[in-house]
Parts: sequence; structure tokens; C-alpha cells
Amino acid sequence: MTVELISIGTELLLGNIINTNANYLSRKCAQLGFSMYHQVTVGDNEARLSEAISAGLERSDILILTGGLGPTTDDITKETLAKVLGRKIIMDEHSKERIEFYLNRINDRKKISKITDNNWKQALKIEDSMVIDNAYGTAPGYIVEDRDKIILLLPGPPFEMIPMFENNMLPYLKRFQDKVLVSKMIKICGIGESAAETMVIDLIEKQKNPTIAPYAKGGEVHFRITAEAENEEEALELISPLINEMKIRFKDNIYTTNEEETLEEVVLNLLASYKLTLVTAESCTGGLLSGRIVNVPGASDTFMEGFITYSNEAKMKYLGVNSETLDKFGAVSEETAKEMAMGAVRASGCDVGLAVTGIAGPGGGTETKPVGLVYISCCVAGKSFVQERHFKGSREKIREHSLIAALDLLRRSILELYG
Amino acid sequence: MTVELISIGTELLLGNIINTNANYLSRKCAQLGFSMYHQVTVGDNEARLSEAISAGLERSDILILTGGLGPTTDDITKETLAKVLGRKIIMDEHSKERIEFYLNRINDRKKISKITDNNWKQALKIEDSMVIDNAYGTAPGYIVEDRDKIILLLPGPPFEMIPMFENNMLPYLKRFQDKVLVSKMIKICGIGESAAETMVIDLIEKQKNPTIAPYAKGGEVHFRITAEAENEEEALELISPLINEMKIRFKDNIYTTNEEETLEEVVLNLLASYKLTLVTAESCTGGLLSGRIVNVPGASDTFMEGFITYSNEAKMKYLGVNSETLDKFGAVSEETAKEMAMGAVRASGCDVGLAVTGIAGPGGGTETKPVGLVYISCCVAGKSFVQERHFKGSREKIREHSLIAALDLLRRSILELYG
Repeated sequence: MTVELISIGTELLLGNIINTNANYLSRKCAQLGFSMYHQVTVGDNEARLSEAISAGLERSDILILTGGLGPTTDDITKETLAKVLGRKIIMDEHSKERIEFYLNRINDRKKISKITDNNWKQALKIEDSMVIDNAYGTAPGYIVEDRDKIILLLPGPPFEMIPMFENNMLPYLKRFQDKVLVSKMIKICGIGESAAETMVIDLIEKQKNPTIAPYAKGGEVHFRITAEAENEEEALELISPLINEMKIRFKDNIYTTNEEETLEEVVLNLLASYKLTLVTAESCTGGLLSGRIVNVPGASDTFMEGFITYSNEAKMKYLGVNSETLDKFGAVSEETAKEMAMGAVRASGCDVGLAVTGIAGPGGGTETKPVGLVYISCCVAGKSFVQERHFKGSREKIREHSLIAALDLLRRSILELYG
Repeated sequence: MTVELISIGTELLLGNIINTNANYLSRKCAQLGFSMYHQVTVGDNEARLSEAISAGLERSDILILTGGLGPTTDDITKETLAKVLGRKIIMDEHSKERIEFYLNRINDRKKISKITDNNWKQALKIEDSMVIDNAYGTAPGYIVEDRDKIILLLPGPPFEMIPMFENNMLPYLKRFQDKVLVSKMIKICGIGESAAETMVIDLIEKQKNPTIAPYAKGGEVHFRITAEAENEEEALELISPLINEMKIRFKDNIYTTNEEETLEEVVLNLLASYKLTLVTAESCTGGLLSGRIVNVPGASDTFMEGFITYSNEAKMKYLGVNSETLDKFGAVSEETAKEMAMGAVRASGCDVGLAVTGIAGPGGGTETKPVGLVYISCCVAGKSFVQERHFKGSREKIREHSLIAALDLLRRSILELYG
């Protein structure tokens, strides 16, 4: 099956919003095994939309239209499609009731008594189409079958569109699958993108099915392995030997093969499994590291407290870093990082201390200590692990890479001592 | 002038990457005053790309093509355009030298001695086209004039595309402007999106030129005011009365009218202007607040240290929160927030203390203290400002809103005392 996206909205053409819908729908269609050859964006203009629909029906089996289903006179997606297909627009009583119910609730809250006439426009449907309820708004979606073509209409706002697609359109589309695409993710930390690629270049070069696609993602490298097959089991059978081969090559640089799992989750799970509590001491990351850690629900069971010690005074006062260490080696040094982690453990009584000190820039760099120089230290069970790292890029990028490197050092330290 | 975007790349059709180029280029073209009616995405396929180019030349004055300029045989943008235009492809010696120079440097680093043949493909150009050097990669861009049409070719990776467009294509395109679009941003904090819209609904409803577009952005509301005119001065004259009217209505809820300025920058500048130093004490935001603050280069002049006190023990030990307060009112309470901010000031010797404590969820909520309940306190010059807030949404959203609310409370507290 071939599928084509038509995104409708002037705000896309003006660059007011990024078309994340196109990205989401492309990915979903690829997973369904459908081939997408065209994506088109047009404004709320009847002539151009009509032309785009006709061209799409000419060359693709399935058209997915997003946007232009709202209550204003600008919104003409449904009406334009009806004209192209030569069908009538009729009132859908079910949608009318839903809209009434939905708007009355909002109006009660806003103390408005009347539903404006244009809202009923959203209860109109193309005859012989299937109405899909919108759980998060007033504009329903529609499935229209026309001879051998399928047209899906979805609302534009992603928080309405995604659940509707996920819960209704996807099950509907699955019956047209003649193959499936299944993908697995290998997430790697501690090796740069080009070094990681080099390690599997032979696999990438001979890839066909499954395919291997590398992505660099803020200090991590992810490899997506995708297999095409008639069903999920067959696809997994194709993927499995490749995953094993990559595990052999990347060893403990792989922190997970579960697409949904993040590095901070892996680290927190690891700490929890050995019943270890964590304290952080941050200089250049200034709270980003701890902020990432508490992204994980339930982080508070493991992560008790953290220090942000930007100034030398704070490093001495809370973490007990020696003034001689700061004088002799500087705030950005192996020695200071080590004392920060040890001091955080001492002050907090936690089991594991993780410290970062570095120069995120843009100012503050010198010849011997350039912008991007970062020291990371992990103190656990009386042992200290310290790393010197050199990161490139903007202030934000350096700080992002620093926090990933810190989480990774923590992961490796625990594995080395307890693993 | 009408302009059309053609994005080329299978990775877009598979949903592997988000088409941020389209967003960037749409915005830039809108600012130039060009009308964009179509955006098209196709893969690296000659027939379909050729068709898209022909359709684009038929209906638009300017075509902007991104992607497909790389060294592999998949990359066919240049070659396909040449065929459509009936022009030859010739070697560009200047590009050849540049590629040689660039690759030799990389190869030295990687210890590779030979430049592979396919790299020379990138030195080929369409005859009578203007070559635009790529400062960040090997694939040059091109400007092709063909009768009354203009075709721009740009590399796909945004970090190569954006500087090339900004530095070379934009100055070139400016000579075709017959009008300009100028926009200003009004950034608001402390009022929800729908309340903010209601306050200016009469202005929005009668908008024509300038237009007013509201955006909700993680706890803030931004209004973009855009005017179309023959030149920048005229546009600014159209915008200025509207800005003044909105300033009258929103008063000190507006924290800036400078598009580039962030809330954290405004807050840090405010602190610096009164020579005040800052300490943070975070519970539910767990470092996100301080992490946001240190995003600002030079933050360390004002922001000295911060505490992340997840556990009650940490709140008592570092911030001196009373155990009776915690027992009687709980960790998430007005009283605890107040004591956290005061305690942070006391412990650090900083001038201003900013504290956040709340329930970010998904667990931990009760009937009297539901998920989303957050207390924020700012302690400055012996005075305490405390706010109770109720946020909705995911854990991340609640934490994001909490930190914005905290920065805003700090801003308002300083303005009240010193402004």
C-alpha cells in the first residue's frame, strides 16, 4: 500500500509551527509497512487543497489529511474533500450531541451561556464516512472509503491527532498490511558516533533486511535495527542475530536495548537494585544532572539530595573541598572533582556521590583549561572513579554531554564494583 | 514573489527525522514577505523529484530544494534539476579544491590516506549556476536562475543549511522583496493562555495588519505581532501602537518584548542590576530550576549555589526547616516552602532565596494534596513571598510550569521591593 500525507494549515507555511505530525505519521506508516512517496503541505485554500487531494488520489492508495477540521470558516478540509469526491455533507447527530456536551462543560467553567453557530460546523460529515470521536477536542476525525482509495481526516493539534490515530486509525489501517516493519533500539554511551559506526561499518555496509540506522543523540549513540517481514515473529527472528552481534562488539557500552528506557532510568534501577542512595554535586551542569535524574518517576527513593556549588566558597563549605586543592589545581581539576564527590557522600551520608566540574563556556576558558574541559567523579564504597573529558560545541551542548557522561560513569562504576 | 519548498530525503518519509528545515525556511520566507503556498517532500527518486520540480516551476517563482546533495549515488538533486532544466553538469574546480582541503584535514585526523571517488561528485555543478561554499561540510549549495525562475539548492543537515541560507541565500533573496514582514514578540508570565487571549480578544478579532498570534509555551504565553509593509520603518510604525496597547493591558505580566530574551535572562539581569546574589532550594523540580538559571552565560556572577533537598532530612539538615513544620504542615506546604527559601539564604549568605516544593506525580498525590500542587517561595531582604499553584499534566509539565512560576515569582518580588 502507498500512503501520502497532506498537511493543511497556513501556520505551517508561515513557519509558526513545526510539522511534527508529518514526522509521527511517517513513522507510524513505515511501521505498518506502507510506502510513503509524497508529503504535501498546503494552506486553507480550496483550489490548492483540492488539487493536492486529486493528485494524491491519483498516485497513492491512502491519503492522510491533517488539519482544517476546526469550527471557523477558514477550515475547509472536509468540505473540499466532499467536493472532490462528489459527495454530500450531512449533519451527524452523534457528533452534534458530543460537541454540545463538551462545549457546555467548558462554557459552564467560563460562564458563557451560548454555543456559537460555527461550532455546529464540526458536527457535519461527508456522507457514507465513518466518524471518529475526538477524545480531546470538538473536531471529529473521519475515515472515507472511495472505490479502492482510503482517506483519513485527522485534526491538526498533535494532542488530539495522536490519540485518535493511535486508538482508531491504526487498528483500522492494520487490516491493509501486507508486511510489517519491526524495529529495536540499541542505546550506547561512552563511544562517539563515528567511532561507534566504524565498529559496525561492515554490518552497515551489507545491511539490507534488517537495516541499521545510527543516530547521535546528545552524547549517546542509538542504533535502530529494522526488519521487514510478513509478521512480527519473522521480523524478530531476522533482528535477533544482529542484536547479538552488536552486543558482542559494543559490550557494556550498551546500556539498554529497550527503546523506551532512558539512561537515567537504567542508572536509577541499577542503584535501586543494590539499595544504594545517591547524592550529586554539580558545578558546570548547575542542576541539569539532578534535574535529569528526577525526571524518572519514583527517583526520590534513591536520589535524596544534591548540591549546586558554583562558587569555590560553596565547594568548600558544603563539600569540604580543600582550599589548597582549589588553589593548587583549580576548581576544574581531577582533584577537585574527586573531593566534590567524596565530600557530597560525607555530608549527606548517601552511598554514592556523583560530581561534575568543568568549563561550559562561552567565557572562562584558558589555554591549559579550554572551554569544554570537564571532570567527572563518582565516589562509591570508598572508591573514587574520575574521568577527564573534552566536549565541543555550545554551552548547552557541553552541559548536556557532561551530564550524560556523568550518568554513564556512575553506571560503569556500579557495574565494576557490584556487577 | 511566491516560493515553494521541496524537501528531499527518504529519512523524512520514514519519519526518522523531523523536517525542521521546512519550518526554518518557511519562517524566513514569510519574513521576506514572500508567499508560500506549497511544501513538498519526496525521496531520493528521480521520477518523483523531477515531477515535483516541474510542478513547482509551473506554479512558483522561487523553488528552494534541500537535501540530496551528498556524495553517494542516492543523492540526485543536482543531477535531476539539471535534467529538468536541460542543462549540463560540469566540474567546478573551486569546489574540488575546497573538498580536497576539507577531506584531507579529516583524513589526517582519521589516518585515512585516500579521498574516495564519490566525493568528487560534490564538486560538480549545473552549468551557469552560482556555487555557494559550505562552511560546515563538503556539499556546496547553488543558486540557479532559469528565465524568470530562481532555484536554490541547499544541503539537508540543518547545521550546514542554516548558516548557508543566512549568510548567502538571504542577502541574495532580499533584492526580490517587494514588501517586508516585521514581527515583535510580547512574552507574558503568570496568566494562562486562555485568560491572556480573553484580555485581548477584541484586538485579535479585528486584527488584519498587524496580526496577533498567541502561543502557549511551557507556562508562558507569547504573542507575536506581525506587520506587513513596504519597509521596516513602516512596519514598526504599524506595530508600535498595538504593543503599547498590550503593555497597558498586561502591565507587569509582560517580562520582555525582546524575542531573543528568555525569562531566566530577565531574572538574572534584574538580580545583577540590584547586585543581588541568588540561592535555590528545590524539591520537586530537583535541579531543573537551577539548571535553567545556569543556561544563561555568566550566571555564575549572580547564582552561587543551590540545594536539592528531596528528603525531609535534607530539608532540615541544609536548610534548617523545622521538624515540627514538616510534621504539622507536611513537606509540600506554604510553611515548608517559606522555611526552605529562608534557610537557603541563611545557609548560603546569598541575598535572595528561591524555593520550590510540590508533588510532580505520577504518584504521591492525596485528596488534600493532589498531584500538581506546588508551593513556591522567594525570600529577599527579610521578606517572604509565597505562592500556592495548581498545575495539570505530566510530571515533566508540572515541573516545567513550577520552575517558570518560580522564576516569575522571583521577578515580581524584586520588582515589588526594588522596582
